[in-house]
Amino acid sequence: MIDLRSDTVTKPTPLMLKAMMEAPVGDDVFNEDPSVQALEKRVSTLFGMDAGLFVPSGTMSNQLGIKVLTEPGDELLIDEKGHIYNYETAGVGVLSGVQIQTIAGERGKLNPDLLANTVRGAFDWEPKTKVLCLENTTNKGGGACYSKVELIALKKFADDHNLMVHLDGARIWNAMIATGIEASFFGNIADTISVCFSKGLGAPVGSMLLSTKERIAKARRFRKMWGGGMRQVGILAAAADHALTHHYELLKTDHERARQLAEVINSKEQFSVDLDSLETNILLFDTKEESAMEFIEKMSAHDIHMIPFGPNTVRITFHFQISEAEMDVIMQAFNAL
Amino acid sequence: MIDLRSDTVTKPTPLMLKAMMEAPVGDDVFNEDPSVQALEKRVSTLFGMDAGLFVPSGTMSNQLGIKVLTEPGDELLIDEKGHIYNYETAGVGVLSGVQIQTIAGERGKLNPDLLANTVRGAFDWEPKTKVLCLENTTNKGGGACYSKVELIALKKFADDHNLMVHLDGARIWNAMIATGIEASFFGNIADTISVCFSKGLGAPVGSMLLSTKERIAKARRFRKMWGGGMRQVGILAAAADHALTHHYELLKTDHERARQLAEVINSKEQFSVDLDSLETNILLFDTKEESAMEFIEKMSAHDIHMIPFGPNTVRITFHFQISEAEMDVIMQAFNAL
Amino acid sequence: MIDLRSDTVTKPTPLMLKAMMEAPVGDDVFNEDPSVQALEKRVSTLFGMDAGLFVPSGTMSNQLGIKVLTEPGDELLIDEKGHIYNYETAGVGVLSGVQIQTIAGERGKLNPDLLANTVRGAFDWEPKTKVLCLENTTNKGGGACYSKVELIALKKFADDHNLMVHLDGARIWNAMIATGIEASFFGNIADTISVCFSKGLGAPVGSMLLSTKERIAKARRFRKMWGGGMRQVGILAAAADHALTHHYELLKTDHERARQLAEVINSKEQFSVDLDSLETNILLFDTKEESAMEFIEKMSAHDIHMIPFGPNTVRITFHFQISEAEMDVIMQAFNAL
Amino acid sequence: MIDLRSDTVTKPTPLMLKAMMEAPVGDDVFNEDPSVQALEKRVSTLFGMDAGLFVPSGTMSNQLGIKVLTEPGDELLIDEKGHIYNYETAGVGVLSGVQIQTIAGERGKLNPDLLANTVRGAFDWEPKTKVLCLENTTNKGGGACYSKVELIALKKFADDHNLMVHLDGARIWNAMIATGIEASFFGNIADTISVCFSKGLGAPVGSMLLSTKERIAKARRFRKMWGGGMRQVGILAAAADHALTHHYELLKTDHERARQLAEVINSKEQFSVDLDSLETNILLFDTKEESAMEFIEKMSAHDIHMIPFGPNTVRITFHFQISEAEMDVIMQAFNAL
Repeated sequence: MIDLRSDTVTKPTPLMLKAMMEAPVGDDVFNEDPSVQALEKRVSTLFGMDAGLFVPSGTMSNQLGIKVLTEPGDELLIDEKGHIYNYETAGVGVLSGVQIQTIAGERGKLNPDLLANTVRGAFDWEPKTKVLCLENTTNKGGGACYSKVELIALKKFADDHNLMVHLDGARIWNAMIATGIEASFFGNIADTISVCFSKGLGAPVGSMLLSTKERIAKARRFRKMWGGGMRQVGILAAAADHALTHHYELLKTDHERARQLAEVINSKEQFSVDLDSLETNILLFDTKEESAMEFIEKMSAHDIHMIPFGPNTVRITFHFQISEAEMDVIMQAFNAL
Repeated sequence: MIDLRSDTVTKPTPLMLKAMMEAPVGDDVFNEDPSVQALEKRVSTLFGMDAGLFVPSGTMSNQLGIKVLTEPGDELLIDEKGHIYNYETAGVGVLSGVQIQTIAGERGKLNPDLLANTVRGAFDWEPKTKVLCLENTTNKGGGACYSKVELIALKKFADDHNLMVHLDGARIWNAMIATGIEASFFGNIADTISVCFSKGLGAPVGSMLLSTKERIAKARRFRKMWGGGMRQVGILAAAADHALTHHYELLKTDHERARQLAEVINSKEQFSVDLDSLETNILLFDTKEESAMEFIEKMSAHDIHMIPFGPNTVRITFHFQISEAEMDVIMQAFNAL
Repeated sequence: MIDLRSDTVTKPTPLMLKAMMEAPVGDDVFNEDPSVQALEKRVSTLFGMDAGLFVPSGTMSNQLGIKVLTEPGDELLIDEKGHIYNYETAGVGVLSGVQIQTIAGERGKLNPDLLANTVRGAFDWEPKTKVLCLENTTNKGGGACYSKVELIALKKFADDHNLMVHLDGARIWNAMIATGIEASFFGNIADTISVCFSKGLGAPVGSMLLSTKERIAKARRFRKMWGGGMRQVGILAAAADHALTHHYELLKTDHERARQLAEVINSKEQFSVDLDSLETNILLFDTKEESAMEFIEKMSAHDIHMIPFGPNTVRITFHFQISEAEMDVIMQAFNAL
Repeated sequence: MIDLRSDTVTKPTPLMLKAMMEAPVGDDVFNEDPSVQALEKRVSTLFGMDAGLFVPSGTMSNQLGIKVLTEPGDELLIDEKGHIYNYETAGVGVLSGVQIQTIAGERGKLNPDLLANTVRGAFDWEPKTKVLCLENTTNKGGGACYSKVELIALKKFADDHNLMVHLDGARIWNAMIATGIEASFFGNIADTISVCFSKGLGAPVGSMLLSTKERIAKARRFRKMWGGGMRQVGILAAAADHALTHHYELLKTDHERARQLAEVINSKEQFSVDLDSLETNILLFDTKEESAMEFIEKMSAHDIHMIPFGPNTVRITFHFQISEAEMDVIMQAFNAL
């Protein structure tokens, strides 16, 4: 099975498993797991943030970030393609009592012009706009990345309107590879950052929330309340640590392969793909007259698996566990269409 | 002061006060207030619904309607101009744990074409779309009304997609006057209806939720929990009853005056107003080069008060407590611009 | 019908209705109702608090008080007989995400000894104890009052343990009459106070939250969100104002009558009542071998109505709308048992 | 370090790590992890329940159980020593909008007599009692177990009062060892069961909720929403599976050692321990005149670590990673006191 459905499907490598086996562990609910603490230190330092909190999923790190930045009755601004709006089971309302205001951005990205007239809350009857959520890279936007200039402009908008910035960095590693922006730059833009180890990096489980010490202490309480406090979870932290050390550079190949395949797809009359907008490992293309679902089923006969992202949109996601041989099979299959 | 800011600003008339004074009352928390019970009976019968619940505000009847139709993690579809989305302090998330999906409709109105591809919830990570919210007339949409044909089409869409329909009928009375649609028709379209007595009808306080007996019993529990259970509130119910009997027909005049003024405004170069879209008592117009705020301040010098509904949009709302003399002053003031 | 079920059952008097009719009103959602503003000023000044917020029910003022003092995950200490714990539909958890820790006090009253070892929150997994709730007079405790000494000791405990104090003063007026403690004393003890006008004072509807300006501004937002924002509600505020001016002194008679009847009941073998603990208008007595429900049904044949407060406990509540003649009927009926 | 603070402190054994390394894994958010599915099948079958859901913590399985059995405004009955009440960060109110009614039981155990007059909800203003929570073994109650007779009586009470039963079986394995009750018996008593693999069984992370298919499907959605959906988490499920196969019988030794040590402690004048009530691996004893904290600090000088469970109560928890040699050190240390 050639699994291009998501970069979440990777499995631990033998070396990663070895690292997991050898990891020193402790009871992380008692704050005594050395592997977790080392990872929280490493990643928060990397991003220039004061503290980190290891959690079981990117959904939890996103929801905790929003929780510590808001009060019930607040509102959050997000692109209409945002993961938090589309794929987190309406958690923002349930867990934080916060309303979402969606904005139709460009490939999942916002800019200050789009945000004009979105901030409100002067009256008791209005939601109080409090958080600007940015996703980088954008999942539903086809892996688009923000430039430094764009982020600086958005940060200025946030400051001008007393908004906090939450960065959903589930694929921030891909953004760093594609744009060359250093991690610490994001720490200057965002008040809370969520990063994920189980997507392109290939750890089996785990995400992290980064912020100030005070906010992380508060998030730790909510993590416990929501059921995310785990015991000897250093085993998973060790996998994340290994992934960060050994798999980060491999993302480059994922990006190259996405482009390689995109060019083939683009050469076919029955498809369309916007080559200019392809930046990372997520490749969206249009199946035009065929429905996405039909095309996907057809390809699964070749044991190549993708997912639909709209009635005529297919998403392909590259990851480091696609072998050279599998890449050849993929290229042949698409060339033969 | 000529108050055109809203139809919520009317004050009880002497006859209404007399009716309030003479109303038999009891403890409504114990379900013993005859005036409340009579009103709940009257209005639910009028709309062909099984039961009604008198509440302190339109916000409470809207929020209770959504509460009894949903579970946490559900999603609600609403026009981006909807009152529930804009003017209820983000209550949908807080009180029901429900996410809002906004749709850009026409003058606050939705239709099945606009709703294509909005229903979701097949996966654990998706919000589960459960309720279609319609507002009639639309407040932010300039008092627009749905036709029977439009409502039947929306009801069909809801049925086809297993959605419940909540009707925000804060100004349903205006819609009935403008379109001639009988109240019971709405009872066939919606699963829950919120109606208000303190807007054009002129009662000082009070709204009502209409639905099945089971849902109203559930809403009664939440009304108590949220602090909306009141004691000898028959006094307010009597005002609402009086308003419904004596002020309903007066809405016609409000609509005529809105049109009368709109024609004057339309004749002025410095304004623009869409005469075709003027249907009820809410008149929106464009101040073009002047900001809405500046224009409003200028007019307040004549003691004529309006509110802004956008950077260059002014809202005027007619109600029965604008006297003939005041109407003359208004017409003169606008003619003189 | 002689209604001793509750002091919430009183109906507006002709003079009160006159005051309501003559009240100047405005749109209180826009903060423009002079009668509401006057009452908020009057009552907050009386208690020495900065600001007040008029709301539709005592449940709403209690719940708003707790809301503005807490965060989700906090805990509140309250006597196991407390109204907030027993009669507010579990609202504390729903509206504030706060857990209740009950303490078995004496007649609904707490003291520092009982509170030893109740405060917690040092660990992420513990609820964080934040609020001490006091009820005065105690409803389920039989109308018991706190003395100054008792309140000072509880305030000290709260200060020593970083707890906020919420005072449920639904019947604070009875406590003031019974103990002679001035209103402003309570303002020094509590961070938020809820007072009610529709119990012994006899207004048809209405309660008020008292606190600092900042907290009241926050409560105003939640009042709107929960559906408690009302329009020309000065009509009800005028009733409350009238009640405070004209009915406050009448509470004395309620207390005297409670004692008068208690002595008769106590003289009967088949009942028992603790005369020493009778302080205000609420009279609890034990029906011993007869069930409370049976006894209540028997008395309702005489058109005297009471409610059960336990399997063998009956509650009688006096209020100013029991006439002299009705008091005679009651006394005769009990004497004849 | 001899760690008797909790049975949560155990670390994976080499054999467990080997099992983890060899486990087939998949993306469990897509329901494709064979190791997770196998464990869910195994454990739900063992308890005679239809379905299971693997989650990151016992807090999450408890909170999910309550979530799927309740609606906001409901109430839950639990012993005042219950884990859900004391150690889950007030989550019941936050996540489910449910109020807790505590009952003072015996060693953390309830019985129908204690529950008389606890069920309520006939009126809108009352919490609606819906769930009876039982903990087995009781943590704060010193590892006490329910007998079959006791459970049958409680189940009858629940049925008679339309209550659902949630069983917090964090240490159900110890109860099974101590009482000989088969797992499937609990499946007949409870509507939802939470079991834990990371306490005495010694898996690093993981708990499971057991119930009907419909409730587990609903719980799966809330697990995702609360951030508990994990990817290749079969690694952890494999550890739990290994623990269940290989460590279950070892619990017997933990119980024997607890008794062995208890007898020594009991022989000392300065302590008191209730030998009759010692049933499993949790040993509570009274330090009488010495404070628990002082005693614990003194023993930590010998590198023997325990935790306080009250001002004069110490908790010792045995687990299979106390070696024979360490047991000797412990016995000597206590004998020498």
